[in-house]
This record gives sequence, structure tokens and C-alpha cells, in this order.
Amino acid sequence: MSQETLKHQLYIIIFGTHTPAGRRFDILLIVAIISSLVVLILDSVPAFAQQWQKEFDILEYLFTALFTVEYLLRLYCSPKPKAYAKSFYGVIDLLAILPTYLAFFFPSASFIGIIRLLRVMRIFRILKLVRFLQDSNLLVRTLAMSQRKILIFFSAVAILVTIFGALMYVIEGPENGFTSIPRGIYWAIITITTVGYGDVVPKTPLGQAVAALTMLLGYSILAVPTGIITAELNQEMKAHRTLVLCPNCAKGGHETDALFCKHCGSELAEPDKRVVPVNKPDS
Amino acid sequence: MSQETLKHQLYIIIFGTHTPAGRRFDILLIVAIISSLVVLILDSVPAFAQQWQKEFDILEYLFTALFTVEYLLRLYCSPKPKAYAKSFYGVIDLLAILPTYLAFFFPSASFIGIIRLLRVMRIFRILKLVRFLQDSNLLVRTLAMSQRKILIFFSAVAILVTIFGALMYVIEGPENGFTSIPRGIYWAIITITTVGYGDVVPKTPLGQAVAALTMLLGYSILAVPTGIITAELNQEMKAHRTLVLCPNCAKGGHETDALFCKHCGSELAEPDKRVVPVNKPDS
Amino acid sequence: MSQETLKHQLYIIIFGTHTPAGRRFDILLIVAIISSLVVLILDSVPAFAQQWQKEFDILEYLFTALFTVEYLLRLYCSPKPKAYAKSFYGVIDLLAILPTYLAFFFPSASFIGIIRLLRVMRIFRILKLVRFLQDSNLLVRTLAMSQRKILIFFSAVAILVTIFGALMYVIEGPENGFTSIPRGIYWAIITITTVGYGDVVPKTPLGQAVAALTMLLGYSILAVPTGIITAELNQEMKAHRTLVLCPNCAKGGHETDALFCKHCGSELAEPDKRVVPVNKPDS
Amino acid sequence: MSQETLKHQLYIIIFGTHTPAGRRFDILLIVAIISSLVVLILDSVPAFAQQWQKEFDILEYLFTALFTVEYLLRLYCSPKPKAYAKSFYGVIDLLAILPTYLAFFFPSASFIGIIRLLRVMRIFRILKLVRFLQDSNLLVRTLAMSQRKILIFFSAVAILVTIFGALMYVIEGPENGFTSIPRGIYWAIITITTVGYGDVVPKTPLGQAVAALTMLLGYSILAVPTGIITAELNQEMKAHRTLVLCPNCAKGGHETDALFCKHCGSELAEPDKRVVPVNKPDS
Repeated sequence: MSQETLKHQLYIIIFGTHTPAGRRFDILLIVAIISSLVVLILDSVPAFAQQWQKEFDILEYLFTALFTVEYLLRLYCSPKPKAYAKSFYGVIDLLAILPTYLAFFFPSASFIGIIRLLRVMRIFRILKLVRFLQDSNLLVRTLAMSQRKILIFFSAVAILVTIFGALMYVIEGPENGFTSIPRGIYWAIITITTVGYGDVVPKTPLGQAVAALTMLLGYSILAVPTGIITAELNQEMKAHRTLVLCPNCAKGGHETDALFCKHCGSELAEPDKRVVPVNKPDS
Repeated sequence: MSQETLKHQLYIIIFGTHTPAGRRFDILLIVAIISSLVVLILDSVPAFAQQWQKEFDILEYLFTALFTVEYLLRLYCSPKPKAYAKSFYGVIDLLAILPTYLAFFFPSASFIGIIRLLRVMRIFRILKLVRFLQDSNLLVRTLAMSQRKILIFFSAVAILVTIFGALMYVIEGPENGFTSIPRGIYWAIITITTVGYGDVVPKTPLGQAVAALTMLLGYSILAVPTGIITAELNQEMKAHRTLVLCPNCAKGGHETDALFCKHCGSELAEPDKRVVPVNKPDS
Repeated sequence: MSQETLKHQLYIIIFGTHTPAGRRFDILLIVAIISSLVVLILDSVPAFAQQWQKEFDILEYLFTALFTVEYLLRLYCSPKPKAYAKSFYGVIDLLAILPTYLAFFFPSASFIGIIRLLRVMRIFRILKLVRFLQDSNLLVRTLAMSQRKILIFFSAVAILVTIFGALMYVIEGPENGFTSIPRGIYWAIITITTVGYGDVVPKTPLGQAVAALTMLLGYSILAVPTGIITAELNQEMKAHRTLVLCPNCAKGGHETDALFCKHCGSELAEPDKRVVPVNKPDS
Repeated sequence: MSQETLKHQLYIIIFGTHTPAGRRFDILLIVAIISSLVVLILDSVPAFAQQWQKEFDILEYLFTALFTVEYLLRLYCSPKPKAYAKSFYGVIDLLAILPTYLAFFFPSASFIGIIRLLRVMRIFRILKLVRFLQDSNLLVRTLAMSQRKILIFFSAVAILVTIFGALMYVIEGPENGFTSIPRGIYWAIITITTVGYGDVVPKTPLGQAVAALTMLLGYSILAVPTGIITAELNQEMKAHRTLVLCPNCAKGGHETDALFCKHCGSELAEPDKRVVPVNKPDS
């Protein structure tokens, strides 16, 4: 087998998802990522760390070795290694192994804070899982299409939150826990999103009245992003429904999940291959 | 009356819901289940338990006897007793009586924890009520159709929550209550779902800024499941409206809740039997 | 003027809303109700009550006198006084004046608790305002049409909340504040609705894991009632849109709020008089 | 260049957004507003204020000078200066500079509270940013069209909150923190909006039962504003889709965000100029 063929075969297994080998590779990788995350999370619990520190460290080195091999293989078999290395997935794949190497070269003699940081930064290898969520393209497309409206919405929320935060800073003052405008804004975000920790709370009657107003406002503007996304999803699903045509009888109006024509019963194109004339987020 | 006829008659009363006798049996059963739950719940309140322990125990034995008879009758008159015993409802019907028998055979001499567990496990007999919610098929079908999208949504939430939980563990550290990554994840879930107990709360300015970001994120992604279910329900209702036709005048466009044709006034098919050509959850 | 004519004229002023006099009567009544509520609410604040107790009492007697006159006039001029007295509004109008009379006949010598109760029960006169919200018939109709689905939804929530409440009672136990199953259910409702007071909170790791599950569940099923109401409202609004025809050019497709035909510009029927063939909640 | 031409050129730069110079002016203004807000917010943090008080004050005077020049230029070049001065934006532009001048004329010898108030009132210059959110006309129009329904919704919430607040005042009483009806209403708003601070919390079993009811109610009526806005947005988007036609091929069915015709590829009218025949909020 020539090197080129080997490279291409590897490419199909590692980057592809439609061959049995490619699918097996994906499942193996998912299992490795999740196991490595479980080790990482358990390692942060003092009770477990004391008992199994050594085992956790060995497992961590094994996972790092595995992900390093995966990264090198991807670089090797990718037709455009530079493009891969600069892509979102390439950066994530590098970030998944980097902290362990850094922790190795800057031993525990240095700052404890940095060690903890490097340890925890490994958690970003969870983003390797995003690759496998990519077939969620209806959702991603909807969010991408609504992004301008959602940006406007968040600007409006930012303005409201700043005004109410500053107002409460004047009304309640440092003596009631509102020590600065940023703290007031923190309170306003807690209140408008209906989280309501209760760590910063108005004490004066006027402050409580303004707080009640903030809550009711938060309550009703919560409806806006929901409305945007729902309406957009509705349009998306309807576009799907109207535009997929049966290859046999050429009639449309099929459900998004339909696999067979409801008029003549012949098989429809696979969902992934249907032409849906909607402006894509990445074009 | 031959035994077969008796069996079939019992079957119609116990499993059926459309004869007067079947309906009366259902109502009796619902009353028994709810009464038994009320006894169980009151029994857990120390003040009531001290005063009426004996009465509660007697009632519990009576209810167990009743549900045992019901279970045996169902097994007897079901045309496929094995299939029933293995079905969701069969298992629930067994679970509704098992804890009382187990508590009887492992008397109070053994672990108190197990006794409490067995006592409380009786609460699962509330699931016997699910049988009577089954005509909610529009809702169940919608949820079933959206389940892939909802799964993807929850994966995304899991990734976000892990990242933010780990971040806060680094930023706030054990000195501010974030003693481990699992605790950080617990905090992130409390925050992103806008529950906001306030038992774990960021203390440092940087931590509060990240918390504010988490809240705004949770606030806006809450819109996604709502959007999914609404859009799906909308499609369902429209399909219903277009595809359910009056058996008399063959005209469509009826509301989901309509019982009579709005064009000619003749009765429509029962909601459960209307043909809505959508792929069912269990096929 | 004959007595019959007087009765009818009074009827038009008091029950009607379309004549100038009827509208003035309505505004006067709304002002009286809200003023009386403001007095009632201020009266409950200790600082205000001490200073103006006498003024508040005099105002309360005046308002009661006013509402008594209103009630008697309604009884007098209604064509079917008995039907009015038994209707929702009749009962509310009686309840608005009853507590003051009762407090008069059972003087402060009796239980203080009852006095306080009678005082506060006057707040129910706020329900007199419901009369003026009645033109919200799109909303009421939507809620009425969704009521069966919402009932099923609440049954499901009740089942979930009972199971999770009982589970937490076993896991956390009385030592962590979960003193009984009802208290567990109270916690589950706080959590699943994302209110999150923080007064009952899980302490054990297992309890916190179950709590996280409850939150995520609450987060996603919150989408269900929203979806139901949105889809129903959508259908309602579309029905409006398609079915109102222009009296001049007979074309349809008008917005719910449109006052003029968008095809030829002639005036449409008043919104209240448009025929919308939807099964009404009260028929 | 005549004075008239200069005036008109300034008008195009300052009020217009479509020329390169106009766009550059807008960006400069946005940067200035946000910088001035950042200074203001940092100034409120005691640690920063102590260290950089002088620098903050100088920056504040510079920003005030800048906004004063902007205000005067707007007054000068506006074709109708009076109309501008009375418009929402004119008032905001004046409010953005007024507090600094007032603080200058009423020196720190007077009340400290007023100084703090004037300092913080500068935050309202954030409203100058609203000008740049104006292309959010789909959202604004939707909110404006739903405003009557939302008003009715808030009246219903006000009624519910008053009743539950008064109820809890009777049930829990001052001994459990419910010291007056306004405080009860404050609790009811916290609960019904699912904020749940936990600063006022029911202690008695009956109070907790009523609280649970309030939560479930809040949980389900939250769906109403969402439903209203979603349904309204849906109608808007559909109207847009049906009624916006390609200027080249005259075909419709374009997405709200589409910039090019999907049938022939020619450019569509700019979003702001598309004719959507819906009654505008301000007419």
C-alpha cells in the first residue's frame, strides 16, 4: 500500500463518519474523552484525590498520550494540515493535550495557582465532543439566523441592567450591600434573569419596589428570545416541509422527520442530502 | 357463564375504559391510589405518625391487599399474562405492592434505613396513575418527535455546565465554597436553570462576572427547548387541521379539540382514532 | 319617566359599557375600587396605621357605603336579579362589602385573628376589576381551549414532584431539613419551578445530584405549557386572520388588529363583532 | 461653502447613518458613550475611586465637553431644532450632560446624597445608545402590536399578586416576616416571577402550601407573554414572507433576513425599506 493510500484510508477513518471503521473510531474517541473527563472531575474531589492520586496521574498520562497520537495522526492524514491546525477543532485538539505538557515542564515548584489552573484547563477537552454534535444543524442554523435579533435583545438587556444597577446603588447604598455600580449590575442580572440567589437583596421599601419592577420586567422580556427562536424554528421547519419533494411523484409538504412520501409511499432523499434553500450560517 | 367469557368480561372491565363498568372500575382505582398516597404522605409527618401510626398501618395493609387482588386479576384475565407482567404497567403494578411485603419479611430488627427506604418506595405506586394520562397522545407524540433535538440540547447544556463549573472552581477555589469540580457543576446547573438557591455563591469580583455571564447564557438558551416544542406542536396541530376530515361532508380544517364538524355538524371521529399521518414515537 | 324606563336606563349605565354615561360610571367605579385597595394596603403597614387609623376607618366606611349602593342598584335594575346575585360578578360584589359588615357585627372583643382575616378579606374586592378585563377574550379563549392539555401537564408535574420529594426525603432525611414527604414535595416544587428560595437545600452529594436532575427536568418541561399556549394562540390568530372578510371587496387575510381592508381600504367590522368560528369556552 | 450647505452637510454626518462620514461619526460616538460609562462605573468602586479620583474627574469633564459640543451641533444643524430638543433623543442628549453641570453649580458643600444622585444620574447617558438599536424595528413593532395583550396580562398578574400577598399576610403574619400587605405583595412578585431570593419565606405548613400554589401558577402563566410575543412574531414574519417581493422577478417567500432573491439572485430592498403592510406602532 502506497503512503498516499494509507493517508487517505486514515483520513476516512479519522475524519469520516460514514464507514463502519470511522464510526468505531468515533465511539472509541467519545469513550476516551468522557473517561478522561470523569478522571479529571473525580481528581478534584479531595476525598478521592488523597486515595487514588497515583492512579489518577497514570490515567491522565495515558489519556494525554492517546490524544497526542490522535492529534499527530490528524495532522499527518489531513489533506491540508495547516488549515486543520488553525481550525476550531484543531485548536481544541491541541488545547486538550497542552496543559498536561505544560504542567510537566513547569513542575510543582512554581505557583500552586498555576498548577491548579493547568489541571483544570484540561476540562476544555470536553469541547472535543462538539464535533459529534454537529449534525444538530437545524438548531445551529436557527441560532445563527436569529443572531442579529438576539444581539439586539442582549444590548437592550445590558442597557436595562446598567440603569437598574445604578438606580439601586443610589437607593440602597453601600450600607445595604450595594457597594458599587458593578455590584448593582450583578444584582440586576441576578434579578432580571430570575436566578435570585439572595446574596444581594434590597432592604429599603423603595429598593424593594424597584426590585419588584425589575422582576416583572425580566419576567416579560424573557418572552422575547423565546419568541424569536420559536418563530425562526417554525419558519425553518416549514421551509423543510414545503421544499423537500418526493423523487417519485414530485409532491411536497413532507414532515421534517418523514422518510417516505405521504402521497405515493416511495422513499424520500436522506435528511442530510435534502436541498433546503436557506442561507447557511457559514456562507 | 364459561370461564372464557368470565375472563373476557373481566378483561373489558379492568383493561377497557369505554364501558360504564370499566369506567367505574377506573374511578375506583384512581380513588384507591390517591387515598393510599395521602396515607403514605401523612404517615411521613412525625406529628401525624405518632398519633395515628396504627390506623395508618391498617390502611396500608388494606390498600396493599386491594392492589394485590387487582394485580392477580390483571394477570388472570390478560390474554397474554407474560407480556403484561413484563410491560411498563405490569412492573409498576408489582412495584406498588412489593415494598409492603418486603417490609413484612424483613422486620424492623434490620437496618432502619432500609425500612424507611421500603416505606417510601411505596410512593412509586403514583406511577399507576400514568395509565390514566395516556389519552394525552398529542403531547407525548410531540415530546417523542422532539427527543433527538432535546437530547442534542441537553448535551450542549452538559458541556456548558462542565466548563463553567470547572472555571468557577479555579476562580473561586475551596475557600469560597467551590470545594471540587462536581460542586462547581452543581453551582452551574443551579445558575443556568435560573433556580438560584444561593447555597453556593461566587464571592470574588471575577467569579461574579463569570456568574453573570452564566445567568445570561442560561436565560437565552432556555428559549431553545421552548422553541423546539412549540414549533413541533404547531406542525402537529396544523397537520391535524389539514388531514382530519369530517366523515360526513369530507371537509377538513377542524380544531384539535373539535368534536363536531364545523361545516355540517356531524360528529367527528374520537380524538384517539383520528388518522394523523405522522411517524409515531414507537415505530 | 316610568319606573321601567328608569330601570332600563340604570341598566344601560351600570351594566353597559358603550354609552358615554356607562363609560363614565365604569371609570368612576375603577377609581373607587383602586382607591379602596390603596387604603386597605396602606392600613396594613404598622407605621401608617398608627398615624392615620381613624382616617383609614372613615374612608373604609365610605367605600363600603358606595359599593353597597352599587350592589343594591345592580340588584334593582338587573332584569334577572337572582341570576345576577348567583353569577361570579354578583358574588364578588357581595364579598366586596360583606367583611366590613361582619367586622361591625363581631366587634374587636372577639378573636383578633378573625378581625385580621375580615380586614384582609376585603382585598378580594380587587376581583371587581376582573369585569373590566373581559375584553381580553382572545387570551381567555386560548386558555380555555388549552385547559385539558394544561390539566394533563399539571398531573404530570404533580407525579414528578411527589416522586422527587419522596426520594429526597429518603436520601437527605430529617437531619438535613427534609423532615417529611410534604416538605420534600415543597422542596421539589420550589426546585422544578426554578423559584429556588434556598430555605430547604440538599446537603449530601447524592441529594445534590438528584437536585441537579430535578432542575434540568424543570427547565425542560417548563417548555411544555409555553408550547401549548403559543401553538393554540397561533391557531387562534390565524383563524382570525383568515376568516374576517372585508364587507366591501370580500377579500380576507386581514391582521387581527387591522381596522381597514388592506386590499381596498374600506372599514372592516369592529373587532368585537367579527364572526370567529371557534368553539367558545362557555358553550 | 454657504452656511446652509455646511448645515446640511453636518446634518447628514450627525443624523444620517448611510454615508461613510456618518458611519464614522456614529462609531466615534458609540466609543465615547461606552468609555464614559466605563469611567462612571469604575468611579463607583471604592478601591478604584481612591486611587484614580483625579483622572476619573478629568475624563468626566472631557466627556461632558464632548457631549455638550455634540448636543449644540445637533441643535444647530437640525432643520427643526425645537422638535429635536423635545424629542426622546433630544431629552436624552440633554440629560447626558446636565448632571455634571448641576454637580458643578451645587458643590460638594451641599447634601452628599444629592451629589451621589447626580453622579449616578449620568448613567442615563446609556440611553444615547438606544438610537443605534433602532433598526430592531421587527422587535419593536411586535412589542408595540402586543402591548394591549401584555397590558391585560400584567393587570391579571397585579390582581393575582395582590390577592396572594394579602393571603400570606393573614396566614403567616408579622411573626414570620410578612409584616404588611406590601411586603406580602413583594413576596408574591418574587415567587410568581420565579426569582425566589429567599429573604421572605413562608414558615407555616399552610403558608408553604399556598406558596407552592403560587409557584405553580407563576410557572404556567409565564407561558402567556411568551405565547403572545411568539404568535405575534410568527404573524409578522409570515406577512413579511408573503408580502416582500423581489424587485427583479417579483417573486415572494423570502426569509426575513434574506438579502438576495432566492429565485433570481438579485438584491432585495434594504430591510428597513421593505413594505410590510402592518399598522405601525406610531400611527
